[in-house]
Amino acid sequence: MTTKNTPVTVAILGATGRVGQELLKVLEERNFPIKELKLLASARSKDATITWKGKSYPVEEVNADSFKGVDIVLASAGNDISLKWSPIAVQAGATVIDNSNAFRMDASVPLVVPEVNGHALHDHQGIIANPNCSTSQLVPVLKLLHEQAGLKRVIISTYQSVSGAGKEAMEELEVQTKALMDGKNHQPTVFQRQIAFNLIPHIDKFVDDGYTKEEMKMIQETRKILELPGLPITATCVRVPVMVGHSESVTVDLERHITVKEAREALEASPIIEVWDNPEDHHYPTPIDAAGEDPVYVGRIRPDTSSPTGLNLWVVADNLRIGAALNAVRIAEYLLDHNLVRPAVASR
Amino acid sequence: MTTKNTPVTVAILGATGRVGQELLKVLEERNFPIKELKLLASARSKDATITWKGKSYPVEEVNADSFKGVDIVLASAGNDISLKWSPIAVQAGATVIDNSNAFRMDASVPLVVPEVNGHALHDHQGIIANPNCSTSQLVPVLKLLHEQAGLKRVIISTYQSVSGAGKEAMEELEVQTKALMDGKNHQPTVFQRQIAFNLIPHIDKFVDDGYTKEEMKMIQETRKILELPGLPITATCVRVPVMVGHSESVTVDLERHITVKEAREALEASPIIEVWDNPEDHHYPTPIDAAGEDPVYVGRIRPDTSSPTGLNLWVVADNLRIGAALNAVRIAEYLLDHNLVRPAVASR
Repeated sequence: MTTKNTPVTVAILGATGRVGQELLKVLEERNFPIKELKLLASARSKDATITWKGKSYPVEEVNADSFKGVDIVLASAGNDISLKWSPIAVQAGATVIDNSNAFRMDASVPLVVPEVNGHALHDHQGIIANPNCSTSQLVPVLKLLHEQAGLKRVIISTYQSVSGAGKEAMEELEVQTKALMDGKNHQPTVFQRQIAFNLIPHIDKFVDDGYTKEEMKMIQETRKILELPGLPITATCVRVPVMVGHSESVTVDLERHITVKEAREALEASPIIEVWDNPEDHHYPTPIDAAGEDPVYVGRIRPDTSSPTGLNLWVVADNLRIGAALNAVRIAEYLLDHNLVRPAVASR
Repeated sequence: MTTKNTPVTVAILGATGRVGQELLKVLEERNFPIKELKLLASARSKDATITWKGKSYPVEEVNADSFKGVDIVLASAGNDISLKWSPIAVQAGATVIDNSNAFRMDASVPLVVPEVNGHALHDHQGIIANPNCSTSQLVPVLKLLHEQAGLKRVIISTYQSVSGAGKEAMEELEVQTKALMDGKNHQPTVFQRQIAFNLIPHIDKFVDDGYTKEEMKMIQETRKILELPGLPITATCVRVPVMVGHSESVTVDLERHITVKEAREALEASPIIEVWDNPEDHHYPTPIDAAGEDPVYVGRIRPDTSSPTGLNLWVVADNLRIGAALNAVRIAEYLLDHNLVRPAVASR
């Protein structure tokens, strides 16, 4: 549908970061209809040049005039930058699709995975939030199970790759691995602890009750996107020495029993999910299978031996794509397809 | 207590393997009272020589005469070897502490973590089973929570190190990591898939209902050790690119609500558990903290946001020690301390 749309002017805020780079790749792959492309970054990254579709683009330092004539801003430069520049971009007439955590729980901001709750985009007021990576890959699966049998309780343990923490984190895993292989030590600077050949049960800051912010994001964002504010859900988020691709061990309790076959069929019907689930052939997704790919992969679907109405599943996806850049571009496509690039309210 | 005991003759079956080596280390560290030490292995490993406490020992190929005069056999050479030689060793008058899966679910064989169900050793009939590594570190934690508030349901996701799959698996992680760092490929031979910078949601063979044998072991062994045959429990077992140390994300539902403080105090009272749980100081256990150490480490204790009577915990331990060699030696110490080296039945 998208390619039939009238081209729009797109600005990428945070163009030099890991997600910014992935955004450029996804826009090209999907042939997103771009009239004009603006690459914006903080002062730190200005003066860089990025080549896209064979053409060279300067990276400009974001300023108050950056958003003139821009239709869609794809922002991925962290909370502070988003908080500062999103209202200015909206004032200038742009719609901001924000990858940061700044607006996700704001009641006036839609938090969207288009295949799950695209309808929420119809009421947007200029800012749209892209969910956290670990949430984005989970909700398409939960949504279908909920439609089929009603979600009663959800328990998740994650295995999250270092790319979720940015380019520097990927470099740290690489450099630290090399140092350890050479019998040397390498002090962590990005992570709290050694990540090479280790795990860290700690992502983002600690908040209340012993939870991390990453865990609370998964819990709260999932409830918001599924429109189930009271959903009993808990999460343990763990960083693992994997470059790209988040994995999730998911236990769901349902209102009524469904068979593995029924669950599999429901998931297979989704355009964005691929079921890889044939234990006999050792067919199940691993992070390296998902890296660079669009689908949410689901495997290891089996009855939960702790509950007659439960299922266990293993969910793997590329955290930079469905978890960030791909979902942002899909939101932009939805806006174009439904003529929603301008906010619903006429108050501006 | 142990060092006051009369020295006994000990045979290690599988002396050249990863657990066999750890057994020798643990016996030395704990000053286990050894009269005579025999190192046994399959034909593949005979002719090796191992130095222990400054003395050189030949590794002998196991045969029908190997167990003459032996009091305790510490077996860690796989199911087939255990199945074949354990009855012969018992016939010769030895008591076998077996680290394999061969006898664990045999109703006549005690499956023991001494601090949890040492009493089961009083009825042994010559063969005693050492639990699977992922079970051994879990049951001390579950036992204390059960005593305090009653276990209603347990859900576990594991993060298991490659040493659980033996020496060759550790070499594969090392060689494969190096190859990938050098931009080369390295075909797996021990694991089903690439393990370096990846995860494999598959440990041991697939069995019924989509579960792996490793997962069913955790479920069945935990029920047997805790003497809760109907305990609702489920597990997802995942291999991670870590050398030594298994981690477990554990969600428990209890019969009655207890506070995090109460849970912490109950766990801290155990002589084999260390609570590392101070989020503000980023104090929580990771695998490299546990490697080479005796305790079961517990951190990230917090209320379960999906259940008013639930708790989430993060449990880490050295899979070669509490998960294998250390627990086996502790069983042997218990036998000596309680004069149980000879079986309870007098039928022999």
